[in-house]
Amino acid sequence: MTRSLHVAAAQMGPIPRAESKTQTVSRLIALLEEGASRGVEVVVFPELALSTYFPRWWMDDDADIDSFFEAQMPSEETQPLFDRARELSVGFYLGYAELDTSGPTPRRYNTSVFVGPDGTIGAKYRKVHLPGHEDHKKDWGNLQQLEKKYFEPGDLGFPVFRAYDGILGMAICNDRRWPETYRVMGMQGVELIMIGYNTPVHTPGLPQHNHLQGFWNHLSMQAGAYQNGSYVVGAAKCGHEEGGDLIGQSAIIAPTGEMMAQAVSLEDELISAVIDLDRCEEIKGWIFNFEKHRQPQHYSIITESAGVQLPPE
Amino acid sequence: MTRSLHVAAAQMGPIPRAESKTQTVSRLIALLEEGASRGVEVVVFPELALSTYFPRWWMDDDADIDSFFEAQMPSEETQPLFDRARELSVGFYLGYAELDTSGPTPRRYNTSVFVGPDGTIGAKYRKVHLPGHEDHKKDWGNLQQLEKKYFEPGDLGFPVFRAYDGILGMAICNDRRWPETYRVMGMQGVELIMIGYNTPVHTPGLPQHNHLQGFWNHLSMQAGAYQNGSYVVGAAKCGHEEGGDLIGQSAIIAPTGEMMAQAVSLEDELISAVIDLDRCEEIKGWIFNFEKHRQPQHYSIITESAGVQLPPE
Repeated sequence: MTRSLHVAAAQMGPIPRAESKTQTVSRLIALLEEGASRGVEVVVFPELALSTYFPRWWMDDDADIDSFFEAQMPSEETQPLFDRARELSVGFYLGYAELDTSGPTPRRYNTSVFVGPDGTIGAKYRKVHLPGHEDHKKDWGNLQQLEKKYFEPGDLGFPVFRAYDGILGMAICNDRRWPETYRVMGMQGVELIMIGYNTPVHTPGLPQHNHLQGFWNHLSMQAGAYQNGSYVVGAAKCGHEEGGDLIGQSAIIAPTGEMMAQAVSLEDELISAVIDLDRCEEIKGWIFNFEKHRQPQHYSIITESAGVQLPPE
Repeated sequence: MTRSLHVAAAQMGPIPRAESKTQTVSRLIALLEEGASRGVEVVVFPELALSTYFPRWWMDDDADIDSFFEAQMPSEETQPLFDRARELSVGFYLGYAELDTSGPTPRRYNTSVFVGPDGTIGAKYRKVHLPGHEDHKKDWGNLQQLEKKYFEPGDLGFPVFRAYDGILGMAICNDRRWPETYRVMGMQGVELIMIGYNTPVHTPGLPQHNHLQGFWNHLSMQAGAYQNGSYVVGAAKCGHEEGGDLIGQSAIIAPTGEMMAQAVSLEDELISAVIDLDRCEEIKGWIFNFEKHRQPQHYSIITESAGVQLPPE
C-alpha cells in the first residue's frame, strides 16, 4: 500500500515588468499543460508568479504598487488558469501579492494559495519570514529587497491541510531558510511542503556570497525535508530579470533529504517526480520520532523572544 | 580586527572493549600533541571517547555497566590528559559516560566537558537527545543502540559559555540532527559548537539507509552552522568496532555551512583549521538576523509538546 502522488515544480524564467498578467498566466497554463501531459497531479509555481519581482524597486505611488497586487483570487486575469486546472484535474500552488481589503484598512501580504484539482482554493498561506529591508537603499538601485516595505508578515502561521490522502503545507521563499518553518509543519505531521521562491544572486552591501546562493537553497530545503521526514517541492523564478539575477535549481526533495529532481535551466521548466507519501514514515518513525526523542523543556528560548539573548560577559 | 582561533577535530578509530582506559587516554594525548605541534588551541574529541560504544550491548550487571562510567572527572586514568593539555596550553572537549553520585540516587548521563587551556573544566553538557531504544532487541545482537537504557536525558539544557574571546557551546551525537539544538544555542549567540559522535552505519530492523549516514551527518551539521551563523566542529569515533561499523567524516564547518576540513580515514586522525569568529557576523547580521526576521508568535507548537499534533481528519 503506497500513497503515490505525481508532483511537479514549475520553474519560471524572468518576467519582465512590461509583460502583461495575461501573458504571464499563459506561461503558467503552458507549464500546467506540460504537467498534465505527464500525468502530474499537483504543480508548484513560484513566489509572486504573476509579475516581475517588484520589491527590487522603491515605489511611492500606491497605484503603482497596487498594480502588482491582486484584490481577488481568482482575478479576471488568473481565472483561465483556474479553469484549465479544473479541466485537467490538476491541483496547484500559486504565489502572488495579495491586497486584503476585508478589513477597515487594506493590508498587503506575500501569499500563496493551494488550488485543488476541482479548481477551488483549498488553503491560503501568507509569508511569515519577510527578508530584506524597508528603508530606501538608493545606491542598491534595482537590487533592493523591499519586502518589509511592501508586505506585512503573514498572520496565518503555518497551517497544514489534508489533500491527496496526505498532509500538505506551504511556505514562501525566505521561509525555507528557517528551521522553524519546517518544524512547525513537521509538528503537525506534514508530508509535502510546497515552496515558491525568488532568490537574488547578489545583494549589494553584503559580504560576497554570490557563489553560495545555490548551495544554501538546497541545504535549507534538504535539511528541512530530512529533519521532518517530509517531501519538499521548491519552485524558482529565475534568470536575468530587470537587471538582477535570480537563482534557479528548482528541486523535488525526498524525506531522506535526497534530491529526486532538479531544474537545470534558468527558464520556464517543469520537473516532476512520482513520490510515495508513505515513505515519510521511514524518517518520522525512528530517527525523527518526535514523541520519543524531543525534549521541549529545553527549547523554551526558541519561542521566548525573536532576538538573541547573549550570555553575561 | 579578527578573532582567529585554531581548532581541531580529533577523530578516533575503533576502541576495542579490551583496550584499557590508560591505553585509550594515551591515544587522546597523542592526538592532543599532534594538535599542539600545529598550533591548535582547542581539540574536539568524540562522544564516549574513553571506551568502546558500549550501548550496543545489553548488560544487566551494574558493575559491568559502571565499568564504562566515570564517577569523577578528571579520573585517575584521565588525569594525564588534563596535565598534558595544561602543559601544552591546549583546551579540549571530551565526551564520556558520567556517573553522577551527587544526589541520593546515582544517575547516568552521556556527557561532555570543555577543559580550558589551564587544564580546568570550564563547562559541562549532558546529551539531551538520546537516540535508540531501552528494550532488549535480542536479534539486533551487538548492533543495538541502548542509550535510552543506560542514560537519562540531559538536565542542563544547551548552555553556552565564553572562552577564547568568543561564545562556545556543546552537543553530543544525535543532538546534531535536531535543529532545536543549534537554534537554542544560536539564540544565545553561539559562535563555535563542538560535537562528538558515534554513528552506526547500519541499524537492524529499519529501512535500508546505510548509504545515507554520511550525507545526513554533514547535512545536519552544515545546516545547523549556516542557520545560526556558527562554526561547527564534529569529531567521530569511527571504523569497525566490536562487530559494528561507525561512520567517520569528522568535519570543521564554517558559518556559511561550507566544509573547511574533513577527515578521510576511519582511524585516529586530526584535522584542523584556523577560523575567524568575527565571520559569524556575515550570517548573523543579515540573512539570519533573528531580531529582524524571526516571528516566534508562530512557533509555539515547537515548545508546546514533544510529539506530533495531527490536523483533524
